[in-house]
Amino acid sequence: MAQDDWALGVDLGGTKVEVAAVNTSGTIRRLLRKPADVQGGPDSIVAQIAQMARELKEQDSSAPLGVGVGVAGQIAADTGVVQFSPNLNWHGVPFQEKLDKALKLPVVILNDVRAATWGEWLHGAGQGVDDLICLFIGTGIGGGVVSAGKVLSGASNAAGELGHITVDLHGPICTCGNRGCLEALAGGWAIARRAMVAINDSPLAGEALLKAAGLSKPIRAKEVNAKLVTDAAQAGDPLARLLVEEIIQALIAGAVGLVNAFNPSRLILGGGVTAGLPQLVERLDQGIRRYALKAAGEAVEVLPAKLGNNAGVVGAATLALQSFEA
Amino acid sequence: MAQDDWALGVDLGGTKVEVAAVNTSGTIRRLLRKPADVQGGPDSIVAQIAQMARELKEQDSSAPLGVGVGVAGQIAADTGVVQFSPNLNWHGVPFQEKLDKALKLPVVILNDVRAATWGEWLHGAGQGVDDLICLFIGTGIGGGVVSAGKVLSGASNAAGELGHITVDLHGPICTCGNRGCLEALAGGWAIARRAMVAINDSPLAGEALLKAAGLSKPIRAKEVNAKLVTDAAQAGDPLARLLVEEIIQALIAGAVGLVNAFNPSRLILGGGVTAGLPQLVERLDQGIRRYALKAAGEAVEVLPAKLGNNAGVVGAATLALQSFEA
Repeated sequence: MAQDDWALGVDLGGTKVEVAAVNTSGTIRRLLRKPADVQGGPDSIVAQIAQMARELKEQDSSAPLGVGVGVAGQIAADTGVVQFSPNLNWHGVPFQEKLDKALKLPVVILNDVRAATWGEWLHGAGQGVDDLICLFIGTGIGGGVVSAGKVLSGASNAAGELGHITVDLHGPICTCGNRGCLEALAGGWAIARRAMVAINDSPLAGEALLKAAGLSKPIRAKEVNAKLVTDAAQAGDPLARLLVEEIIQALIAGAVGLVNAFNPSRLILGGGVTAGLPQLVERLDQGIRRYALKAAGEAVEVLPAKLGNNAGVVGAATLALQSFEA
Repeated sequence: MAQDDWALGVDLGGTKVEVAAVNTSGTIRRLLRKPADVQGGPDSIVAQIAQMARELKEQDSSAPLGVGVGVAGQIAADTGVVQFSPNLNWHGVPFQEKLDKALKLPVVILNDVRAATWGEWLHGAGQGVDDLICLFIGTGIGGGVVSAGKVLSGASNAAGELGHITVDLHGPICTCGNRGCLEALAGGWAIARRAMVAINDSPLAGEALLKAAGLSKPIRAKEVNAKLVTDAAQAGDPLARLLVEEIIQALIAGAVGLVNAFNPSRLILGGGVTAGLPQLVERLDQGIRRYALKAAGEAVEVLPAKLGNNAGVVGAATLALQSFEA
């Protein structure tokens, strides 16, 4: 790869589409963000991305090597067909083929969390190591695993669903249908659900939380979110602190299992819930040192993600640069 | 590799040492088994293995390509030093170097469960696929993972400790110090512990189990084992059937998490507890189909291991054949 090579990185979620021009060093030259026209279906999204790509290309003297696209959904590895995306309500969309035609550039499609893992690995908190786990703890919990210098993809390109490891077999039902998934205990939606139940059940508790949110009982799940809970815990609300402790214990249990199974040298934590829990990196580090097997626990360092919301576009563009270099 | 090449495979546990002459096809030509002279320390074990290897070599017209050794413990990947083996009570034993000298053959050392995974992958139930998980459920629970055609080793050669994924964060303490590990719910020692408590707690239950074992209350953990429990369940003892159902639920919870995390195309079940639960393969298959994420669940087939106790020697020899071919 030449040093002035660049690629387009796309991050397509259920609400917004981002397109960035990214250097080989992982630096973002320019970034555009728009609300995703999900209602218009795949062709509208393709048109949106093509328009944004055109804007970015016009501002540059050289042409991009190609386009990497991270999509929230399950992707067929060989064809770049989006087999299923709940957020976009897509089933079997030949997205790579459509983008190829519209952009007249080579396109590679991958899962959005996998793209973010590429970003953190090569240009973020994972630089320089061959074995790592990224855990993105937001509304849901997603993950990505690098082992022996390869991003694991599994038999059907679905590996790394680390939010759906069972950590409490008698625990609450997850949106996936399993019981006690890590996400069902520590994902943003689960925190909100748990907080709603706890506040409504307890005659006095959660007052700071309610006051901060301008809410009164009985509350509904939609009225409370993970940020309210973590903010209230910071402000000293006893119920919120209890809920935060439960979340951290679940994350320790999950992290210990992942460290024992994968033996990474770094565990990288990203996502909105992580941002709301400034103590999380240290607590997970302590928990792993105490509860993981010695050989695995000693090998791993817990670190916050570095690229924030840009991990996806940087990772997708980086994969494109690697895939399409001359 | 020439078709008549062969290697020595060694399986060294806490009680016995096995040495086998193994063909490139994975066939065992000859196998020797002796009680391991653990009291004598590493040098006695080296002498035992050298003697057994000599016997096998004398019976063959050609020389073996090398020796693969599976050891129950943690192995340094580059040097073949046994960093820690609880069963042998070894710390930092330069086992590869010692065996090299004694045998005058190239030696490769690996963890015993990793060796069994190599065996099942290339010559057992894993033939022909690039992504699989082996779960060996015996007194403890060990595992091995193949992803994209590579046996995962992790950052410090300790990956695949699948018995120590947390499946019940409020569950019983494991021997490793963590709470609610899969092994602490479904490993043989844990089944015995759980059965002892359940039998002693319940005034009437467990009668068939006690009768079968010639035991009377109060019983101690050492008097009951997993086989007694699974046999009593087969015979219809209600308490034993309840315990078996708990074990199966824990294994489903663990298997679902592993399938979601690794996305294998085969989940291979071995070990003594598996042998005592003839319904296990089908129950795990059903559980995964019901509770795993669709993309991962549809990709995986649950199968019993094929090589039984020979997986270790076959796998170790196979790795030696691959490592030392001309």
